[in-house]
Amino acid sequence: MLNFVSNLSSSSQLDLLKLKLTKLSGADLTSLSPNGLNSPNPYPIVFPMLHLALQSLESTMPQRTQTAIMVIGGAEDKVHGCEILHSFFGRSGGEDARIAILPCASREPTLIGERYRSIFQTMGAKAIEVLNICDRDQCSDPILQEYVSNCTGVFMTGGDQIRLCGILADTPMMTILRSRAQAGEVTLAGTSAGAAVMGHHMIAGGGSGETPNHSMVDMTLGLGIIPEVIVDQHFHNRNRMARLMSAIAGHRDRLGVGIDEDTCAVFEGDGRLQVMGKGAVTIVDPGEMTYTNQAEVNRTDPLCISNLRVHILNAGRCFDLDKRKMILPTH
Amino acid sequence: MLNFVSNLSSSSQLDLLKLKLTKLSGADLTSLSPNGLNSPNPYPIVFPMLHLALQSLESTMPQRTQTAIMVIGGAEDKVHGCEILHSFFGRSGGEDARIAILPCASREPTLIGERYRSIFQTMGAKAIEVLNICDRDQCSDPILQEYVSNCTGVFMTGGDQIRLCGILADTPMMTILRSRAQAGEVTLAGTSAGAAVMGHHMIAGGGSGETPNHSMVDMTLGLGIIPEVIVDQHFHNRNRMARLMSAIAGHRDRLGVGIDEDTCAVFEGDGRLQVMGKGAVTIVDPGEMTYTNQAEVNRTDPLCISNLRVHILNAGRCFDLDKRKMILPTH
Repeated sequence: MLNFVSNLSSSSQLDLLKLKLTKLSGADLTSLSPNGLNSPNPYPIVFPMLHLALQSLESTMPQRTQTAIMVIGGAEDKVHGCEILHSFFGRSGGEDARIAILPCASREPTLIGERYRSIFQTMGAKAIEVLNICDRDQCSDPILQEYVSNCTGVFMTGGDQIRLCGILADTPMMTILRSRAQAGEVTLAGTSAGAAVMGHHMIAGGGSGETPNHSMVDMTLGLGIIPEVIVDQHFHNRNRMARLMSAIAGHRDRLGVGIDEDTCAVFEGDGRLQVMGKGAVTIVDPGEMTYTNQAEVNRTDPLCISNLRVHILNAGRCFDLDKRKMILPTH
Repeated sequence: MLNFVSNLSSSSQLDLLKLKLTKLSGADLTSLSPNGLNSPNPYPIVFPMLHLALQSLESTMPQRTQTAIMVIGGAEDKVHGCEILHSFFGRSGGEDARIAILPCASREPTLIGERYRSIFQTMGAKAIEVLNICDRDQCSDPILQEYVSNCTGVFMTGGDQIRLCGILADTPMMTILRSRAQAGEVTLAGTSAGAAVMGHHMIAGGGSGETPNHSMVDMTLGLGIIPEVIVDQHFHNRNRMARLMSAIAGHRDRLGVGIDEDTCAVFEGDGRLQVMGKGAVTIVDPGEMTYTNQAEVNRTDPLCISNLRVHILNAGRCFDLDKRKMILPTH
């Protein structure tokens, strides 16, 4: 359902209809940007009927090609439908995409970088660069900064989130990238370690199989691309609910976002989170927490956390990040 | 903190003070039942000062010796402080306790029955019987029924909850036991499988490491001793949050109660749940759930569950089962 961006045949259908309507109406509709499709009234009302016809088509068709921040829980499908990666490709501009791959979380950056290059090449991206950065000084390189300033999509691979932050945090290149992603000028995706770094606070590691406690989660600072979230990835697959809850107990102004493997939390520019992929995105909201002992207890003592709100959202669901509520299906 | 029941020296202190006050006031306070300690005014006001003195003592001393239903998450300490088992012993009447052990969940009922007998014998229980029931017909035995009708504590061991229900469900003995436990006439404890059977709905088995879905939890009927709960045990130790959430999605009128090992959810007669032991009791409350797809999806499809409330409560915490809120600490 959410694989609309990559559905080029549907985009072509829309273009075709615009062309037909242009011929019928005499008005030029073909130059309208697909990015305008979500604005309240993206089309001039030439004839009310034409307007309605376009609206009706839009409501049944894939609608969004705009940029987003795509937070992927790791192990995304790279062989079969490649739903999530295809969506990233589409949101980066499809065949016009200029993609930067950042493999620096990995200890085998060349290998993993080339794997993603091959995938996006097969999809038909116009330009792809693997930015194999292995020390912080490279992030000041004007050529790299220029590429990041002009690309339409950036993909951060998996590996070790501490290594990734160590290389990128507080560098000129990261400042450009964060600012462009937040402004909706570029589609930024991160998988696994590349997902973990999204928040201001970051889960660096931890355990499972214990009563929530401080010692089961190691916190540090992330890249602050979506500052208000604390991301956990491989979420249900590695039984990480207790560690995310342990993390969120100390950060009641944040939102815990646990993302399963082959699943993506798509942060849209309009304040919504959309879910795509095989598993679920779990939201742990401490906004109404009435009590926690987290400030008083030792590292291995059980935490007490009262009144968390939890939402488990599968593919196709939307969550309003401002209201902190799931947007209910209309059917 | 919650080990008050077994603190016999403190009970003796209270008796001693009553005796002293009786001598001072001339009124007989010694015959007052400890079960009355929680009523609004258990003592006649002989002198206001004496009344205040007793109230003051009560507020600093272990207070509760009343019956309760004790739901234990398995692997309770049997060697060191035996906190939970000692509390069961105390709530069953301490040295006056007449205890029935029901080991029938286990495939080694004699072995496990004798182990618990030895523990309660060491504590000083007056009478202990291991009711080694291996088929349903035995539950109609008048001698067994009489013992269950007169005992002060019943302890159900671990093993296989399906086996336990298969033997006990809908038998005359179970009817007596449930009715006495609900009326507060007997302290009933169950650990592991003996905990799982407490609700009307029971988790018979399941998995972990998956996005919540129907296939990861097998539901059947329990013994209905606390009908409104769905219990899961060995809870965080075996990463069972996802399976409890999968279970609760289909039962929004119930309350999910996940109990860690060596931890006990004590259901008091007054509608409170108290926590004791090493880990936590996790409450999963679906009462305000705004959406779930559970009625529409296949067994392995990811569940969507929006707006669960979750409380993780460590030792000493109380939860109001009617208001579905943690009772906040007053300090």
